[in-house]
Amino acid sequence: MTKWIYSFGKGTAEGSANMRKLLGGKGANLAEMAELGLPVPPGFTITTEVCTHFTQSNRAYPDGLDIELTEALAQIEGIMKKKFGDATNPLLVSVRSGARASMPGMMDTVLNLGLNDVTVQGLAKGSGDERFAYDSYRRFIQMFGSVVLGIDHHLFEDQLEDLKEDRGTCLDTDLSANDWKELVGTYLVMVEEELGKPFPQDPNEQLWAAVSAVLGSWMNNRAKTYRRLHGIPVEWGTAVNIQAMVFGNMGNDCATGVAFTRNPSTGDNQFYGEYLINAQGEDVVAGIRTPQSLTKAERLEQGTDLPSMEEVMPNLFREFVDVRKILENHYKDMQDMEFTIQQGQLWMLQTRNGKRTAKAAVKIACEMVDEGLITKTKAIMSVDPAQLDQLLHPTLDPNARRVIIGHGLPSSPGAAAGRIVFSADDAESWAERGEDVILVRTETSPEDIHGMHVARGILTTRGGMTSHAAVVARGMGTPCVSGAGDIRVNYEKRALIAFGQEYGEGELLTIDGSSGQVMLGEVATLQPELTGDFARLMEWVDEVRILGVRANAETPTDAETARKFGAEGIGLSRTEHMFFDPERIIHMRQMILANSEHARRTALENLLPYQRKDFIDLFTIMEGLPVTIRLLDPPLNEFLPHTVEEMREIAVSAEVDIETVKARKFELDESNPMLGHRGCRLGVTYPEIYEMQARAIFEAAAVLIKDGKVVVPEVMIPLIVDKVELDMLKHVIDEAGKAVEKEQGVQIDYLVGTMIELPRACLLAGSIAETAEFFSFGTNDLTQTTYGFSRDDATPFLEVYQEKNIMPIDPFLSIDADGVGELIRMGCDRGRAVRDDIKLGICGEHGGDPASVRFCHQLGLSYVSCSPYRVPIARLAAAQAAIDNLEESIENQ
Amino acid sequence: MTKWIYSFGKGTAEGSANMRKLLGGKGANLAEMAELGLPVPPGFTITTEVCTHFTQSNRAYPDGLDIELTEALAQIEGIMKKKFGDATNPLLVSVRSGARASMPGMMDTVLNLGLNDVTVQGLAKGSGDERFAYDSYRRFIQMFGSVVLGIDHHLFEDQLEDLKEDRGTCLDTDLSANDWKELVGTYLVMVEEELGKPFPQDPNEQLWAAVSAVLGSWMNNRAKTYRRLHGIPVEWGTAVNIQAMVFGNMGNDCATGVAFTRNPSTGDNQFYGEYLINAQGEDVVAGIRTPQSLTKAERLEQGTDLPSMEEVMPNLFREFVDVRKILENHYKDMQDMEFTIQQGQLWMLQTRNGKRTAKAAVKIACEMVDEGLITKTKAIMSVDPAQLDQLLHPTLDPNARRVIIGHGLPSSPGAAAGRIVFSADDAESWAERGEDVILVRTETSPEDIHGMHVARGILTTRGGMTSHAAVVARGMGTPCVSGAGDIRVNYEKRALIAFGQEYGEGELLTIDGSSGQVMLGEVATLQPELTGDFARLMEWVDEVRILGVRANAETPTDAETARKFGAEGIGLSRTEHMFFDPERIIHMRQMILANSEHARRTALENLLPYQRKDFIDLFTIMEGLPVTIRLLDPPLNEFLPHTVEEMREIAVSAEVDIETVKARKFELDESNPMLGHRGCRLGVTYPEIYEMQARAIFEAAAVLIKDGKVVVPEVMIPLIVDKVELDMLKHVIDEAGKAVEKEQGVQIDYLVGTMIELPRACLLAGSIAETAEFFSFGTNDLTQTTYGFSRDDATPFLEVYQEKNIMPIDPFLSIDADGVGELIRMGCDRGRAVRDDIKLGICGEHGGDPASVRFCHQLGLSYVSCSPYRVPIARLAAAQAAIDNLEESIENQ
Repeated sequence: MTKWIYSFGKGTAEGSANMRKLLGGKGANLAEMAELGLPVPPGFTITTEVCTHFTQSNRAYPDGLDIELTEALAQIEGIMKKKFGDATNPLLVSVRSGARASMPGMMDTVLNLGLNDVTVQGLAKGSGDERFAYDSYRRFIQMFGSVVLGIDHHLFEDQLEDLKEDRGTCLDTDLSANDWKELVGTYLVMVEEELGKPFPQDPNEQLWAAVSAVLGSWMNNRAKTYRRLHGIPVEWGTAVNIQAMVFGNMGNDCATGVAFTRNPSTGDNQFYGEYLINAQGEDVVAGIRTPQSLTKAERLEQGTDLPSMEEVMPNLFREFVDVRKILENHYKDMQDMEFTIQQGQLWMLQTRNGKRTAKAAVKIACEMVDEGLITKTKAIMSVDPAQLDQLLHPTLDPNARRVIIGHGLPSSPGAAAGRIVFSADDAESWAERGEDVILVRTETSPEDIHGMHVARGILTTRGGMTSHAAVVARGMGTPCVSGAGDIRVNYEKRALIAFGQEYGEGELLTIDGSSGQVMLGEVATLQPELTGDFARLMEWVDEVRILGVRANAETPTDAETARKFGAEGIGLSRTEHMFFDPERIIHMRQMILANSEHARRTALENLLPYQRKDFIDLFTIMEGLPVTIRLLDPPLNEFLPHTVEEMREIAVSAEVDIETVKARKFELDESNPMLGHRGCRLGVTYPEIYEMQARAIFEAAAVLIKDGKVVVPEVMIPLIVDKVELDMLKHVIDEAGKAVEKEQGVQIDYLVGTMIELPRACLLAGSIAETAEFFSFGTNDLTQTTYGFSRDDATPFLEVYQEKNIMPIDPFLSIDADGVGELIRMGCDRGRAVRDDIKLGICGEHGGDPASVRFCHQLGLSYVSCSPYRVPIARLAAAQAAIDNLEESIENQ
Repeated sequence: MTKWIYSFGKGTAEGSANMRKLLGGKGANLAEMAELGLPVPPGFTITTEVCTHFTQSNRAYPDGLDIELTEALAQIEGIMKKKFGDATNPLLVSVRSGARASMPGMMDTVLNLGLNDVTVQGLAKGSGDERFAYDSYRRFIQMFGSVVLGIDHHLFEDQLEDLKEDRGTCLDTDLSANDWKELVGTYLVMVEEELGKPFPQDPNEQLWAAVSAVLGSWMNNRAKTYRRLHGIPVEWGTAVNIQAMVFGNMGNDCATGVAFTRNPSTGDNQFYGEYLINAQGEDVVAGIRTPQSLTKAERLEQGTDLPSMEEVMPNLFREFVDVRKILENHYKDMQDMEFTIQQGQLWMLQTRNGKRTAKAAVKIACEMVDEGLITKTKAIMSVDPAQLDQLLHPTLDPNARRVIIGHGLPSSPGAAAGRIVFSADDAESWAERGEDVILVRTETSPEDIHGMHVARGILTTRGGMTSHAAVVARGMGTPCVSGAGDIRVNYEKRALIAFGQEYGEGELLTIDGSSGQVMLGEVATLQPELTGDFARLMEWVDEVRILGVRANAETPTDAETARKFGAEGIGLSRTEHMFFDPERIIHMRQMILANSEHARRTALENLLPYQRKDFIDLFTIMEGLPVTIRLLDPPLNEFLPHTVEEMREIAVSAEVDIETVKARKFELDESNPMLGHRGCRLGVTYPEIYEMQARAIFEAAAVLIKDGKVVVPEVMIPLIVDKVELDMLKHVIDEAGKAVEKEQGVQIDYLVGTMIELPRACLLAGSIAETAEFFSFGTNDLTQTTYGFSRDDATPFLEVYQEKNIMPIDPFLSIDADGVGELIRMGCDRGRAVRDDIKLGICGEHGGDPASVRFCHQLGLSYVSCSPYRVPIARLAAAQAAIDNLEESIENQ
């Protein structure tokens, strides 16, 4: 016969911590603590299976539950030496939900259950505190009334307000025992009026009604939404915990508080917490009274006179220190605990693994390894990769004052302060004068690159997490807030307008790319530390990691950052970014305006030395590591200017008339440039462009080879949809390679491969792999085309989709495993079937997203490539994925 | 042992017409004619297997070929009573390629082979015509020299020109026997200089060299390109036909010509052809002399005095008439024949199925059925569906004079003449005055619809075959030439500029949407006939067809045309086209400019009556047939104007200030609208829009139902990528349905389904089918996203792709079976796995493309939906696919 109820208390328990699935998180941990001999108020847990039965059988209970519950309740009575519903010595209980995964605030709780017009008097007498007894009773009626009986909680609050007004006070503490008694009377009348029948006086009836309410709350709308957002299956169900009430508010020998086994902010191995004397749990959270420190050391550091628990209750404190040690040694993780002291007795109400900052997570992980408490594997698993980002960028000083004037998307993490400028050129000239600047634009385009490079931070009012500004900023590691919709830019006035207020060029602004906040003035920041514990942890990470991690980088700065952060090569070097430099773009524009292959070749010859120099730099920094270079990708129009004035300048410098510039601009203008004349389509139309780029790559390689250095160039062709176009372009590259080898008298080992970034390339990956020596999945474009979402335009409707819970996860941030992921898997399988040693990687923005990294590990890719600043995150995520897979395979043996 | 050579001649043959694979088309038909006892010059065919051997073995011949060839040659000698290489009575032969599929002009031919310095004298003596003999010899040296020996043919031509100049003439016919003799001498010296050795005099050496050259030509670049473009496998190889030469130029009892068993232009059952007395085959084609009619009747019709063959050679003509009958009865198809008469003897040189106009094809098919010559099935297979289009639109009178001033893409078939106008409004006002107009624009947008509706034809200077102008024009059946790049439009001047010449508003222009020609003035046109033979054929088509054919239509005119052309319902009714009417668009714009749901609802309420009226019309016209209505699809920005002036007007009519209009326009502006806020994303953001549309559909249905009529509405939601968004929107529609049913007291049977037009929808078709009751594959958008090609922008680079043979077939015209097709198949399979009776159709432009229709038939779709004017094409293509499948399945039994 199925067992529906598991009891705990007095040093023993029927359940344990590993029965989380059946008992929920709270119930399992309560059982575990009881079993460890810790002082847990006795109680029992109704299993999640009851919830499932209840949900599926139209709110009916399984047979036998009532008998088990009666027995379990009797057990509590025995331990507590009180009786449920007894007129003189009543046992009160709490009824709480507790699911397998934490769902804070989503489901219902009833406290002080068991009170009625009779037992309240017993409680008053037993505690010698009538005020306490009636206060508890009125709380119970309100809680039970709203949660179980479904009466609007405002009705209760209104009555309380009326009473306080009547007594001329606004504080609950000013009310007396008689006041509470009066309120209880009012409540009982009101409940009867609302329900048409009296408030239930029978404690058993109360208990069953509360259990039904908690079980029913699993299916309320809040809970459903939460589950959908967090991917929690409805089948899991919730457990119900029924536990003897203990009170921290029965006098000065009573207290309540929360504690952490180590400091959750710093990670220091010090007992840390807060408590209040003569108070209830909710008082600590509510902030009406200032909580006091747990330890003397902490009190001294805070510089306060409010005595610590260590000082006030030294014996209990020592007892609690023992509990701390027991729990941490037992759980082998930092614990977050709730406790209550009732008349000199310590009761443990909850324990769970504590949340912590990234800094604390790393420190705790390392120190626990040193203490022999956990293995390195456990240490790696204990740090959240997404959180790691906090450590890699400057952060706002949490103590600094902030004047927030707007919000946007946290597009590239880190905090930065500087003077407002509204154009890339201004950014450059202000920066040359030695000023820190924040570049503010409605949106950015490749023409703004030089300004973005010198800016401390970037703020745009349009565009999503994968807009040009966001992608480029992340690549550079420059803080960026994008799509700040409540801010407007007026270029004519050179003003930023927020909440009706104007801020001009040169005013100081701080942005936090980790939170999306935009602040007035200069807010102090803290610099990241990458040595010590962080370095140790990353070393362990690399020991278990299988998946390679490369970086997306094209400038020497980016490449150096990437190598510093542990990148094992470059997975995406975007050559077009190299053409926007003012002294180069003129040649690019001449090339675009040329009307013959000959004229194009002349312009390209002028670009060649620059491009060669770029590659020499990259190869030198990445010596010995592979460098994947993507040939020209964006539509040519991106290199032409927008204003007539600029067009005139270009006409002069390119020695054509302005009508030619205008006509060419018009000719190149596209309705949907994302799906237009770009990528390898440029190479097919103007093979001389790719020929020049290939030559620059090989000439650069030759320079290093002659110098005795190892170069590993991988030439990557973007936007391929068919083997035939790849064949044609590979031929162009190979011819350039042969020519350079002959001219320079060296042998160059290189690969030619392709981006796989369109659905058709995934479908035809088999035939494409006949020619391609490697694939790099471009998950940004692949997501755009698979969904039909333009990343530049999707923000407005994706926000609606998220609000309406239609698409809880933004597919541009985390790979959509069902759609895009299936195409990637198809591409891998088909590619491998034709070329079994094909090198497979990804180089979209997803390369730095932990869930996507896990997905790539599972697919058996060779590497992921991400922004330099996300390299450590990808390394950690890859290590965790490897450990998970290993553990799964061991479990499956 | 493999047989390498098949002989024919003198009433017998080793091969036959069904050995096309081994003997090539020409060789098989020569054998067949010989076997039928027709007068074929004796010869033999070297099989395609020899070609394969030759190609794979580095130009080596298979063992035994030489012995077979010697025997076969001896057989010709026996029949012709001449000897190959004989000094007095030499046999000359032709050496011709002949592949399984016709590859006109792609491979090499050598005539008059066997001539040398000795045999030429024998030929002169035997024919009694020295001029003829040396003329033949100089032709042979030139042909063999260039084709076999690889000498530039210009060198020969230059010598001939020099000689003629020397003789003071420019006509070959002015040259004498001695002149040709002299030229032969010059040629022989020149060849020896070029080659470093003399011209081969040994006829056997000549023969083997010519065979090698013909076999080698299978792998020349021209042939390779042709095969790639026409999907001919390299494995097929070519046969080589060696045949005794016969001469039509040996006197006035000689002649040569081509003939058709029926008139290939009109289809009339009359012998039809042209011939020339004392001439060679190439003279007929070259047009130096005017060819004469075959029959007297034809001569009289042409009103010429040049006598017909019937009159000049009555006996031979009668013999030829018998041949005509024999061949047509035998091949059961109209034949295209080549013949030569040498000194009073008729020789048949070739027969093959004749090419014909659409009109002729239909007429011949029907009459051959009546004559009992072919079955209805054969008749259906004999008409090319793509060609059928000629019959459905007005065509240019082939006899009318044309002044061509530009070329564009043949985007919507049919010819139209009218006065030039440059805006939709002008089109309307000129049309109201009773003028026929041609609307000329750089490109069109949905705002131009009212002008497009009244125009006789549409001409744009930008945009491809699937640009807005092209798609809408095809839907309306209005002739359209798009992307006429050599024409420019100057709106300010109201002028069209072509080749430096300006043409103003009001000038007469004719466009031919079938050829892409743009002509000055009014060129006479001919109207289509849809009755008689056409109607009979289409009846037979519908008897065998399995795949349903619907039309894409939204206006009553379109719907009526569709039904007239045999559509079995509407597969795509684009509701947005209904909002561009001037009296409606104001409400649409108010809706877009509204800043609250309430204001939007008010505007929508004003649109509801119009929309309901639209659906009543459609349901009435399509009574009893399904009507698929797609809810609003395009980005809202398409409904807002571009110019400040227009924005001002709108601000007034929508009662907002112009800044609001500008701001909203800016807000709605997208980088890639194709991938933007459109389709069901509008429905998710503003459910009230879809609610209004659903209500209009159901209210319209209720009107008809109350009238006792059958309505079959299918509500279609565009751009779905996920089940969750479809669930939400289906709920909106079903709620509207329930409400209308209750209000109107009727029961409405309707389906709710979705477009499958994005790769993700194909991949997730299984889960989507849990909610969708039908799928309609939107192959336009699916092609765009699968390839990453914007159809509005792809024309420039797709042209390059076609020039460079990278993508011979435009995937927007014919479904890409490898990529897009695999996604569609996946969508079908996954959809059916979840819902086995799911209705599957396609509604892209591909629905009217015969190859795509075949693909859809093979997938087992329920229907294709195409432009009304392509409905007959789709019906025929579907019938042919059904017949093919049946024949294949019989063959496989």
